[in-house]
Amino acid sequence: MVCIGLNLEGGEDARVIDAAGLLVFPGGVDCHTHMENTFGPSVTADNFASGTRSAAFGGTTTIIDFALQTAGTSPLDAIARARGKADSKASIDYGFHVIVTQVDERVLGDMQYAIRHEGVSSFKMFMAYPGTVMSDDAAIFQAMRMVGQHGGMIALHAENGTIIDLLIKEALAQGHTAPKYHALTRPAIMEGEATHRGIKLAELAEAPVYFVHLSAKEALKHVIEARDLGIPVFAETCPHYLFFDESAYADESFDIARYVMSPPLRSKDAQNALWTALKTDDLQLISTDHCPYCMKEGHLGRVNQKPFGADDFSKIPNGVPGVETRMTVVYNGGVRPGRISLNRFVELMSTAPAKLFGLFPKKGTIAVGSDADIVLFDPDESHTISADTQHSDCDFTLFEGHRVTGRVKKVLLRGELLIDDNDWVGRSGGGEFVARGELGAHW
Amino acid sequence: MVCIGLNLEGGEDARVIDAAGLLVFPGGVDCHTHMENTFGPSVTADNFASGTRSAAFGGTTTIIDFALQTAGTSPLDAIARARGKADSKASIDYGFHVIVTQVDERVLGDMQYAIRHEGVSSFKMFMAYPGTVMSDDAAIFQAMRMVGQHGGMIALHAENGTIIDLLIKEALAQGHTAPKYHALTRPAIMEGEATHRGIKLAELAEAPVYFVHLSAKEALKHVIEARDLGIPVFAETCPHYLFFDESAYADESFDIARYVMSPPLRSKDAQNALWTALKTDDLQLISTDHCPYCMKEGHLGRVNQKPFGADDFSKIPNGVPGVETRMTVVYNGGVRPGRISLNRFVELMSTAPAKLFGLFPKKGTIAVGSDADIVLFDPDESHTISADTQHSDCDFTLFEGHRVTGRVKKVLLRGELLIDDNDWVGRSGGGEFVARGELGAHW
Amino acid sequence: MVCIGLNLEGGEDARVIDAAGLLVFPGGVDCHTHMENTFGPSVTADNFASGTRSAAFGGTTTIIDFALQTAGTSPLDAIARARGKADSKASIDYGFHVIVTQVDERVLGDMQYAIRHEGVSSFKMFMAYPGTVMSDDAAIFQAMRMVGQHGGMIALHAENGTIIDLLIKEALAQGHTAPKYHALTRPAIMEGEATHRGIKLAELAEAPVYFVHLSAKEALKHVIEARDLGIPVFAETCPHYLFFDESAYADESFDIARYVMSPPLRSKDAQNALWTALKTDDLQLISTDHCPYCMKEGHLGRVNQKPFGADDFSKIPNGVPGVETRMTVVYNGGVRPGRISLNRFVELMSTAPAKLFGLFPKKGTIAVGSDADIVLFDPDESHTISADTQHSDCDFTLFEGHRVTGRVKKVLLRGELLIDDNDWVGRSGGGEFVARGELGAHW
Amino acid sequence: MVCIGLNLEGGEDARVIDAAGLLVFPGGVDCHTHMENTFGPSVTADNFASGTRSAAFGGTTTIIDFALQTAGTSPLDAIARARGKADSKASIDYGFHVIVTQVDERVLGDMQYAIRHEGVSSFKMFMAYPGTVMSDDAAIFQAMRMVGQHGGMIALHAENGTIIDLLIKEALAQGHTAPKYHALTRPAIMEGEATHRGIKLAELAEAPVYFVHLSAKEALKHVIEARDLGIPVFAETCPHYLFFDESAYADESFDIARYVMSPPLRSKDAQNALWTALKTDDLQLISTDHCPYCMKEGHLGRVNQKPFGADDFSKIPNGVPGVETRMTVVYNGGVRPGRISLNRFVELMSTAPAKLFGLFPKKGTIAVGSDADIVLFDPDESHTISADTQHSDCDFTLFEGHRVTGRVKKVLLRGELLIDDNDWVGRSGGGEFVARGELGAHW
Repeated sequence: MVCIGLNLEGGEDARVIDAAGLLVFPGGVDCHTHMENTFGPSVTADNFASGTRSAAFGGTTTIIDFALQTAGTSPLDAIARARGKADSKASIDYGFHVIVTQVDERVLGDMQYAIRHEGVSSFKMFMAYPGTVMSDDAAIFQAMRMVGQHGGMIALHAENGTIIDLLIKEALAQGHTAPKYHALTRPAIMEGEATHRGIKLAELAEAPVYFVHLSAKEALKHVIEARDLGIPVFAETCPHYLFFDESAYADESFDIARYVMSPPLRSKDAQNALWTALKTDDLQLISTDHCPYCMKEGHLGRVNQKPFGADDFSKIPNGVPGVETRMTVVYNGGVRPGRISLNRFVELMSTAPAKLFGLFPKKGTIAVGSDADIVLFDPDESHTISADTQHSDCDFTLFEGHRVTGRVKKVLLRGELLIDDNDWVGRSGGGEFVARGELGAHW
Repeated sequence: MVCIGLNLEGGEDARVIDAAGLLVFPGGVDCHTHMENTFGPSVTADNFASGTRSAAFGGTTTIIDFALQTAGTSPLDAIARARGKADSKASIDYGFHVIVTQVDERVLGDMQYAIRHEGVSSFKMFMAYPGTVMSDDAAIFQAMRMVGQHGGMIALHAENGTIIDLLIKEALAQGHTAPKYHALTRPAIMEGEATHRGIKLAELAEAPVYFVHLSAKEALKHVIEARDLGIPVFAETCPHYLFFDESAYADESFDIARYVMSPPLRSKDAQNALWTALKTDDLQLISTDHCPYCMKEGHLGRVNQKPFGADDFSKIPNGVPGVETRMTVVYNGGVRPGRISLNRFVELMSTAPAKLFGLFPKKGTIAVGSDADIVLFDPDESHTISADTQHSDCDFTLFEGHRVTGRVKKVLLRGELLIDDNDWVGRSGGGEFVARGELGAHW
Repeated sequence: MVCIGLNLEGGEDARVIDAAGLLVFPGGVDCHTHMENTFGPSVTADNFASGTRSAAFGGTTTIIDFALQTAGTSPLDAIARARGKADSKASIDYGFHVIVTQVDERVLGDMQYAIRHEGVSSFKMFMAYPGTVMSDDAAIFQAMRMVGQHGGMIALHAENGTIIDLLIKEALAQGHTAPKYHALTRPAIMEGEATHRGIKLAELAEAPVYFVHLSAKEALKHVIEARDLGIPVFAETCPHYLFFDESAYADESFDIARYVMSPPLRSKDAQNALWTALKTDDLQLISTDHCPYCMKEGHLGRVNQKPFGADDFSKIPNGVPGVETRMTVVYNGGVRPGRISLNRFVELMSTAPAKLFGLFPKKGTIAVGSDADIVLFDPDESHTISADTQHSDCDFTLFEGHRVTGRVKKVLLRGELLIDDNDWVGRSGGGEFVARGELGAHW
Repeated sequence: MVCIGLNLEGGEDARVIDAAGLLVFPGGVDCHTHMENTFGPSVTADNFASGTRSAAFGGTTTIIDFALQTAGTSPLDAIARARGKADSKASIDYGFHVIVTQVDERVLGDMQYAIRHEGVSSFKMFMAYPGTVMSDDAAIFQAMRMVGQHGGMIALHAENGTIIDLLIKEALAQGHTAPKYHALTRPAIMEGEATHRGIKLAELAEAPVYFVHLSAKEALKHVIEARDLGIPVFAETCPHYLFFDESAYADESFDIARYVMSPPLRSKDAQNALWTALKTDDLQLISTDHCPYCMKEGHLGRVNQKPFGADDFSKIPNGVPGVETRMTVVYNGGVRPGRISLNRFVELMSTAPAKLFGLFPKKGTIAVGSDADIVLFDPDESHTISADTQHSDCDFTLFEGHRVTGRVKKVLLRGELLIDDNDWVGRSGGGEFVARGELGAHW
């Protein structure tokens, strides 16, 4: 007997958890993380062990990370390599999007196989970073068309890489090497352009499309238009775009490297538009794009971190930590001031990502038959966020010193306690790969 | 012990209902019905006894009907009168919107009292029907402003009554008396105009607004624009707008009187737009506007029915039956061809109306602590809709002869069976008034 | 022989005017002035004698003023009365729009007669000022439909008078009597609402429509949308909306009465949108709405001027002077900073109003066969605007103390010099009524 | 003495041309022609001698043709080569846009030189045809930025060449070789995509942009949006898009090769939108894209014409004749049914192209000081269009057999008669190169 009820009469061995005064949420689902991720010669501070533990402390019980198809290899190889990094190391459940960097008939066939047999039904492609991971429009279109026919989805990094590449070269040629030029060479209008292009490619391919880390109002506009027409366009934003803005790029100091992620922080006006779109469901998810590189070289032995680009902003590894703070900062800054309702918060943190990426109803809800991934959250407890007290191996957090109200207290994964009153009590490496099948059943 | 679960171990007196092969839905909530409604000298064919029984056969376990404030009286009197018509007669649960036709300080005070103490937090006002129920912009604005401050909401009938009145007089003066002129004198563009005006009044009043029976693409456009901006604008459409169109008004015969409702049927293009909007959540509800007048004078003793306007279309009582067919026609024509998902269907039929109008979580969901209003629905059984086999006292249905797949089989109201395999087994008059409080908690 | 040419060989009696260093424009056409206008007990400071002389000094050689239909009288009577005030008193050419305040079959017939036989083809109606000049939607629609069929046009004052009236009463009831409440009780959103409504009435009537003194971005939005669809919607703005904004209503002092016009000044953001719309031709005209009431009681014998509303903002006569400054302020603030081109300036000042209101090619161009209404303008001469040096009988100008570059030097009306180097040399009362016929030939 | 006037007193040697019953227009300006143009191994049927004579018969007295920068050469070489083909051969005046296919510092410098010293201030770039003339986004952006700073403008062929190239390859691989697949492999949505991208590149570059041969509603939408915001975006369409539609691609016959131009014909819905946009000035020009390839191999000795692609649609030379029929078909199909006014017709045929591309006031108007390029047009004469009676060396016209009303009767170039009552009386090779300088003075 498995049930949800009132006044339940459990047996003697029943474990009762007192949740008085706490909110009970389904476990968080973060669809955009980069554990043990490589950016040129730099590897993120967190691997699957440290990163998933950090996630659990933040109330996240499932992540979808990435498996990178390298040149000339199969997406299936990529999945195998990613499994090798995560299996028996991750402490929460996990899945993968495959990053596709090259498309031909064989690759398309392997993608189809991955959907049917490997539990991987989403693929990420880049409209930026020419020469490394960027795909041209024809490759993206071909991949979209194929996955659209077989229940998969393409996630796009939408920035016009050709233009950005030119602007970066011009900036460096002019001696503009400081971190702030990272932002100045990635204009919002070129995120808007790429987003529009991605939507049109998807329309032509008759396929759904998902935009990762949407940051610009110019991009959001196109997502809104498409969704008003009932076209299957989806998008996430990230906590850093909701709480920080371009005023961070004020001077030429290296300290600004902490704000180097792609896309960069945008205008205050864009930030307000993102919040409105979270409310109107024009944005469906808040993912973290957790991709932590340390501000100090050598922290816990990590090398080639942010200082690697001290003399050339284009070499600063792009990314920030965030997997641990997602729930608390969105609760504190979104629910408490009334920008989004508590129900919408649960939808954004858990239900919507689970439904969108084929995890529902196993994940994303508290229901009979679903995994008992449960978060007990104290809506009234205040604490101060600090890298010192977090569980990531990264040495900074953008939210350093932020006083927030709302805190994850207990976390269960498939019925087992991982976190109890802020202490780790779970089994390390107990996370499981979650196979996903065809998408779309719960859109 | 109250619970939802698998493999439950009930006691000996547990009643087990076999739902093999059936879909299990929360009971339907229909927010727009007119039982025992008066239109000039005409009274609808259904009173609360016959109408709610008809509703139950269609899977609807809660309705929100109307209480009419007549000139010089209080909204509180209107509620008392409406309660008198429904209490102990209705067989399903019910609430009321008060139709406000006159606004002054005292009326505004009584409306506030109704929200706080009478369980009535929504009010309907008319932008059409000058000389009877139409309110001017100032009255609507004052009412909106007040309810916006106290957790209520104004529902608007949005058509420009001043223009329509002129067009009707001109048509009659030209000898155009046939039913089709009902449609020709209520142009879509004037529904669009009134809808825009209603939204702007609500914006100025800083209040939410709800549009009843939205039918025109011109009106929908404004709802979409407002919702994209995060403004609290809501709207319902009705099944007749989803399945019939203006081609019904083809000739000058009286038989067309069956299609006389306000607004009238619109273009095929508008119909497609309504379906898209149901999918994108730009329309939130499908209500029936059940307001049945018979096509034949004297049917079951009813007089002054549709033939009352045989020589003057403006005297044809406006309205059609629909409360019994809502679930089956939307399932058959919406879910089966893939226009909306099954989950969206449940949201439209039950969850969304309950949340919007303050009935949730008592109504609108199957959850521990909620009323056990439950519908068992056979997704595969086909049947033919006919007035002969329905339970309304009206003598026609627009869906006469439609062969549909998907049928309500069993209906429970608060745990008691009302319908069992298409037979009435419930208690007549067992419906209860549902007090609603401040709205907005679940938007 | 009449010609335009180079190296012309005139006879001995040829008069040669040296225009070296000057720009040569066709005479200005101002389609919105109120000479000898009544607002309650108040009459404007300028009559046709002083007002048209003031206009001429500003480079305007033709105005279209108003003829008011009073209750129970014919539009033809209104024209006769207006002719009586202007004939042999005006020193520049003039026409009239009839202000229609009441519509019935006879009035509609007389309007048609006015278009065909009286040279008056445009009519103004008010969506504001209930109880005095406001028309309801049905009256406006009927008038639009008639003029649309006979080559006329309705000009609308678009503000929702019903709402404004309520807000005024509420403000006064709260003791808010200072001039600034004039602005606070006329919200931009209600100009937007009325503008949308006016457009939709015109669409239904299949008639063109013109919006006077458009000031709000909310109103402009609807004009832009309609024009993108090729619907014949036109609009003017006024210089005061282009150079002043709502920050003028800063305190409770009476001095703010100088900024009391309807609609009131709007946001800086709206002002920028108006300038863009002038460039994109979404606004076609800049008229002055010259309607001067003095700031000091008794100035040149005028009574019941702005101070009449010292204790009640609703009694302050609405209006400001402007007919003399139009060309110089738009040149200085529009052409010189590059907001509009010099060609667009000429179009706005002269050609577009002449074409829109049936004066072209008699007015609005320098061409063989057109009236020789010519302005010589020094683009480089600077001067300071002041009521002291102007020629209106009003005692103030909003532009007091503004230093501007660009000045009217010489003005010819039908080949006769009116102004020569800033001196009046023309014939007083030499203006002629300009009969206009069916509109639309030059749209 | 040069003048325009009435009752002129000419001397004895004055030539008087009787224009009784005729309309007098400024000479037509066609900004998009391809004389002696190469497409793979195919050369157009018309060279500058035959093509400009054909133009003159259609009332066009000035063309802007193209000078192609070939790989590794300078734009200045291209101009010299084009001059060599036209000088002393063209019978009407002409200028050039340089087609830029490769961008580097030297090329950018030569483009700047061309604006300042060679009278060539507009440049065309291709977003289609990868491997031959297509430029990537970075090249287009760099060129835009440079010309934007120096008074030039980039004209874009906006179709997504990467996608089209894939679709062509896929179609051919599937054995789809007939001409109709030319249209099916160039979807409207990809013209819309490229148009949006071009606008965004121009916005980033702070430069004006011009779209050649705009055909798709999806592209027009973006032009309208940009123009509403006052952004300097311009576009032409062509007569074939205004009078033919995609229904032409009905079957697999080779005869359909006559409709092979790029972009292909679009939907009827798009066609209506183009007409509306011509009226609202969202489209500013109607150019012909005259690029005639014969339907029969060997006609007047031309080889490698349309039949060259008989077995492979991708080898059919793209293009149709049109320079001779522009004025008559737009008059007959645009002015006569009331889609555009006569004044707008003159603007589209002559004034607007002259102003946009730096030819005004030398061209584009009848004014003292302007070239006396004059067309006398009989608005009432009917004739039937046929390749047999036209003056192009091409063997077909899309308008074959069209009965039209409105005919060019006499044409003067700089005061000299070229055409007199349908006969050539002019000097062959008397056309002159028209140097243009910085653009923008008359926008």
